[in-house]
Amino acid sequence: MCIFEQQPNSTIASLGEVELIQRIEKWLGDVSPESPEGMGDDCAVLDCESNKKQLITTDSLSYGQHFDSSIRAEDAGAKLIKRNLSDIAAMGGTPGPALLNLLCGPDLSIEWLERFIQGIRQTCEHYGVKIAGGDVSGLREGQFSAVLTQTGYTAEPILRRGAKEGDTIYVTGSLGGSILKKHYAFEPRIAEGRWLADSNVCSSMMDLTDGLAKDLPELIPENCAAWIDLLAIPLSDDSIQIEGDPLEHAFCDGEDYELIFTIKGSVENERFKQSWQTQFPETPLSMIATVGPHRDNAVLINTQTQKAVPWKKGFEHCLQDE
Amino acid sequence: MCIFEQQPNSTIASLGEVELIQRIEKWLGDVSPESPEGMGDDCAVLDCESNKKQLITTDSLSYGQHFDSSIRAEDAGAKLIKRNLSDIAAMGGTPGPALLNLLCGPDLSIEWLERFIQGIRQTCEHYGVKIAGGDVSGLREGQFSAVLTQTGYTAEPILRRGAKEGDTIYVTGSLGGSILKKHYAFEPRIAEGRWLADSNVCSSMMDLTDGLAKDLPELIPENCAAWIDLLAIPLSDDSIQIEGDPLEHAFCDGEDYELIFTIKGSVENERFKQSWQTQFPETPLSMIATVGPHRDNAVLINTQTQKAVPWKKGFEHCLQDE
Repeated sequence: MCIFEQQPNSTIASLGEVELIQRIEKWLGDVSPESPEGMGDDCAVLDCESNKKQLITTDSLSYGQHFDSSIRAEDAGAKLIKRNLSDIAAMGGTPGPALLNLLCGPDLSIEWLERFIQGIRQTCEHYGVKIAGGDVSGLREGQFSAVLTQTGYTAEPILRRGAKEGDTIYVTGSLGGSILKKHYAFEPRIAEGRWLADSNVCSSMMDLTDGLAKDLPELIPENCAAWIDLLAIPLSDDSIQIEGDPLEHAFCDGEDYELIFTIKGSVENERFKQSWQTQFPETPLSMIATVGPHRDNAVLINTQTQKAVPWKKGFEHCLQDE
Repeated sequence: MCIFEQQPNSTIASLGEVELIQRIEKWLGDVSPESPEGMGDDCAVLDCESNKKQLITTDSLSYGQHFDSSIRAEDAGAKLIKRNLSDIAAMGGTPGPALLNLLCGPDLSIEWLERFIQGIRQTCEHYGVKIAGGDVSGLREGQFSAVLTQTGYTAEPILRRGAKEGDTIYVTGSLGGSILKKHYAFEPRIAEGRWLADSNVCSSMMDLTDGLAKDLPELIPENCAAWIDLLAIPLSDDSIQIEGDPLEHAFCDGEDYELIFTIKGSVENERFKQSWQTQFPETPLSMIATVGPHRDNAVLINTQTQKAVPWKKGFEHCLQDE
């Protein structure tokens, strides 16, 4: 179905602002709490979780940039919140309430928007998230952007910085070729992230959104490098099916939404993998690298050749804004 | 200056995403804390204030909708954050950290964006706000939207609902004609809101963004009405200068960003006004109405004529999306 409508009475302009907000509240159903925990006042009121840190992150989704008419409205809505939940997972957090901003052209289809909101609602129900509030504002015809701001909580967040030489680098799932379907058909690794934060053996973590080549260096401390076993990189079926070198896809494609993290060098890897397997039998785990000394200013080194991997941040494909 | 540039090397596209984010961090200066309290990780990490409630609100600003080329970039940036701070003020809160989303066409001018960010920075410095993080993403040429999500704290928020029959309705500042300049040249009433929340005499509050006709009914409990002394409405110089009936401007114009609130009926009005005058000698305060019984389903009643005021929510001018 079309995101924009030519029939005037099928557009959000026909509703007016007050009615539109009422509809959104209705579509959200149980994931829209009563004011002041939900919509209806100048701010939403949240409880502070004592002895915990609050996490907060925000991401947007724009028509023509992050999705087009080939994506179902429900999948677009779900993707917006899942992108944010993946960030919460990457810190080891438990999701809290979220805020939703909708920036809509007057010709936005009411039915499309309802389905978009349904996608958000289903994802909220699945992960226990409430929509505490937000904002609706206008754009010119043919334009639609949505911004979601997600809160979360954790006793001790896992940061990107924290790895040390000797740590082991793991990645969940499989990588590359997300453009075929995974860029919207992914599940944020909330349970896995939380378990890692509780484990006391995880020294750093992030979610893979821009490909290994751009993201993995973020975890590597100064004067160190990731010594990578290229044969251990978990290649997705889609990275193989799509044109080009599957490894290049794994390093340079965006939107994998997998966790990449380091485990302290003092931890016995076989034992760690066994605990993982018991806890998450359905989530693949791959030990892909260790944090070692840097060499020739390279941050990502192929263990076999002892040379820098050929895929760099500067690689054109990697520079595409994600 | 122009918001969009034709010279390729003056546009944000010439910087690329990584360099653009580094510039934004530099432009923000001291109001951009180090990670993880600031930018640089998957989420920002905030401290929870124990024994307090957290407030959270979000508002957007789009080119062509909320501002045009006649507005200085600094004023547009300042407006975005002040709109949000006005919502924090309206709950009696103290501002906490904020998140900033920028949705930018590739032809956005670097210099314009720097000035926009300077406007945000100066406002942050003035109100003690830090930018904890955010997101940058792309739009098509000629498009720019910014979304700010503002947190705040308070022991006990003042809600819109809470007024009772017999309470007195006050408004700060003066109303109407904001289109001439006040819609960006306003100051959020943070100190006043906080003082009211601490006073224990304020039963409900909101900020005036859509005009008295649309906003005031929000404070009125069921089966009640605001009995308004039209002569007491504080008309701004701009509401008089601009074409049309100044009272109509006060009721129907948006973006006054003044506080409207109710004081418990048990409080002696002269004493309250004196305390206010001592505390905020430079902030005008007007007692404009009392909460009385409703009559003929009217929520806003002219005390003199005992009839509904002629300006309704349905008045076309009031329906403009703000």
